[in-house]
Amino acid sequence: MKSGLHFLVAAKRCEIDELQQLARTSALVNVTGRLVHGLQRERGLSNLVLGSQGARFTEARAQQITECQQIEAELRACLDCMDTSATPTGNGARLYSRIAYVLHGLEALPGLRQRVESLSWTSRQATDAYARLVTGLLAVVFEAADSATDPEVSRLLVALFNFMQGKEFAGQERAVGSALFVTGRADAGEQQRLLHLIESQERCLQVFVDFASAEVETLWRQSQESTTLAELERMRRILCTASHGTALDASLSQTWFDCCSRRMDSMKAVEERVAGDLLQVCQEKVAAANADLTAYNALSAAPPSGTDGMSFFEDAAPTPGNPALGMATQGFGLHLERSILELVQEQAHRLQTMGDELDTVRASLNERKVIERAKGLLMAHRKLSEEAAHKMMRQMAMNQNRRLIEVADAVLAMADVLPEGPR
Amino acid sequence: MKSGLHFLVAAKRCEIDELQQLARTSALVNVTGRLVHGLQRERGLSNLVLGSQGARFTEARAQQITECQQIEAELRACLDCMDTSATPTGNGARLYSRIAYVLHGLEALPGLRQRVESLSWTSRQATDAYARLVTGLLAVVFEAADSATDPEVSRLLVALFNFMQGKEFAGQERAVGSALFVTGRADAGEQQRLLHLIESQERCLQVFVDFASAEVETLWRQSQESTTLAELERMRRILCTASHGTALDASLSQTWFDCCSRRMDSMKAVEERVAGDLLQVCQEKVAAANADLTAYNALSAAPPSGTDGMSFFEDAAPTPGNPALGMATQGFGLHLERSILELVQEQAHRLQTMGDELDTVRASLNERKVIERAKGLLMAHRKLSEEAAHKMMRQMAMNQNRRLIEVADAVLAMADVLPEGPR
Repeated sequence: MKSGLHFLVAAKRCEIDELQQLARTSALVNVTGRLVHGLQRERGLSNLVLGSQGARFTEARAQQITECQQIEAELRACLDCMDTSATPTGNGARLYSRIAYVLHGLEALPGLRQRVESLSWTSRQATDAYARLVTGLLAVVFEAADSATDPEVSRLLVALFNFMQGKEFAGQERAVGSALFVTGRADAGEQQRLLHLIESQERCLQVFVDFASAEVETLWRQSQESTTLAELERMRRILCTASHGTALDASLSQTWFDCCSRRMDSMKAVEERVAGDLLQVCQEKVAAANADLTAYNALSAAPPSGTDGMSFFEDAAPTPGNPALGMATQGFGLHLERSILELVQEQAHRLQTMGDELDTVRASLNERKVIERAKGLLMAHRKLSEEAAHKMMRQMAMNQNRRLIEVADAVLAMADVLPEGPR
Repeated sequence: MKSGLHFLVAAKRCEIDELQQLARTSALVNVTGRLVHGLQRERGLSNLVLGSQGARFTEARAQQITECQQIEAELRACLDCMDTSATPTGNGARLYSRIAYVLHGLEALPGLRQRVESLSWTSRQATDAYARLVTGLLAVVFEAADSATDPEVSRLLVALFNFMQGKEFAGQERAVGSALFVTGRADAGEQQRLLHLIESQERCLQVFVDFASAEVETLWRQSQESTTLAELERMRRILCTASHGTALDASLSQTWFDCCSRRMDSMKAVEERVAGDLLQVCQEKVAAANADLTAYNALSAAPPSGTDGMSFFEDAAPTPGNPALGMATQGFGLHLERSILELVQEQAHRLQTMGDELDTVRASLNERKVIERAKGLLMAHRKLSEEAAHKMMRQMAMNQNRRLIEVADAVLAMADVLPEGPR
């Protein structure tokens, strides 16, 4: 017959299992982040190639493709090592489903590259295609963050996801800006898109700062070299304020690309630091949980006897003014019985506290889900682009002096009463 | 090398695993509910025994104990069958930790019974002790509800948990009322407690109705026989309005106990219906997921070939006005490739929708957690009883015309700025 101690031990084993899984997921997140970084660079270079009608940047692009292929092989090796016959804790189905999507994207990648090479796609088409693949990769990271059962690990994953998402907006900004400079002509639509991308990355990076440790935040501030930032802002101004149809200095394309790339490379260093912290925290927690397990198992070796277990009905900490409920001490075994019960209560309390902390951290993920859902609703209902839907919600928030999440909640609450949109 | 299809299948297997686990958890919830029901009855009878100084109800109590021992054996058999070496999805550690606590409570149960038999405890002590054990059992049901990954199953579990919790308040009401009648004297403190229990059960039953299916709600309304209800309300009035210290008709103790028991037995019938629905829904969903899996596996047998996977970059449903991005159709294999991608997208979309629905259902569990946390804070900080803390929050809600959850949020937000309470 299984005892309370048996389940105390089983609960600790679950914690260890979950932490080990998180460590493996963190490794997957790490290589995913590197592939994202590589693809972002490949996208930027592809835009330069397309913009220059294949006249420039082909060599750099070819090198970048080789690098991406190597990281892709690493990612595939990581996926091949996953024991998919076991159901992971958390939302395993969602994680696997995201991975399935990514694998389809990777299958299509050679075709995308070929279309860039043959100059048969526009910059916009190529940018969108790369962005779709990167979005799929980031969704894997999001699910990893959403499945973490430890609040500290979850906090790091939330910080990491938002950083990666912010960096992706920066990457899209680089690609769109590259295309604009290379074509040599300002375009109001693309300029709007740039502004949207700048605002979106700032929002993500703010969430990152909210969740990052003080050390990482400092690292992040230091990594943003002021000369690079100043140059970036100057070029952003040139790009975004030129009147529609006027000329842009095509020779700035290289400068823009290099400046954006310097910033993104320094972002990658911060990202790798957070990914490293993540692995380390997982390992430390596994070690601590294993030490607890050893202590529990030592208790198993000497099962309690000679007590009637009445400590259960005593108050956890009887005080003089609040005497325990009149139990006679039973001597032998009572100390052990009481210490196991205390362990059970301590465990339950700790798990409860962790759950509460987790809820707090996850609130930011839920906010993101709600905002995305509301945006999707507006896009479908009003036939808006993602940017336009976002802009509409932001405008509502400003007009009503409310937070974006509140507007999103209101949009979703309206969903049931909305008339059918145009189809 | 694992394909997208491999992870599509793995995701479906996760879903099946999770549903099968939910089916097993539902079986555990079912026997837990029956033990709770038995212990509630045993508590009521114990109060009658204690109140009559052992003169009455000893035979009925002995019979009830035998019944409880049988159900306890069933529960232990169910726990012995659990494969605790595997980590369940969801919050496995929390579930096991709750079970460990319950097992300690069950160890202490013989000692509790002995103290009732020897009349060495007061009614209040015995009621509190039984309530502590029942609270532990209900916490197992709560964790089961909190770990469900399917929104429909989660909805049923939330309904069931709230119903069981409401029934427990009804059971405590029966016990407190029994003790009052048997002692033959009104007591202001116990009368306050009765009112609190009545209000608490109504709140839980309202949540139950919000989450129950229309059929179950109808069953519930029909089960509440109006003659029993009328008698219950009459006796509640007698109990709660008698002035402190005045006599109560001790001969009504049997009538009160029988009336409350009739109501609780009819509640048990509703509870079993919901528990049955739960098992059935799990089984139906497992069957449907298995059918999907078979269909996926048929695709595995014929892997796509001869395509470059470019459907990934097409829009999900290209329309005349929004042509796909200029891909040439590749003929052989394209249809299969596209249909797998569609399955992946359909799966991702379905899991997303389920996740959104789950968030909505779980919001009520989170509200409960927040309210309990706020109550705990007030209890610790102001040295209040659970009833008094609840009453204070309810009063704040009424005064400020806000919902209880909003007051709880405000209490928790205040936590950081509260001065240290008296120790």
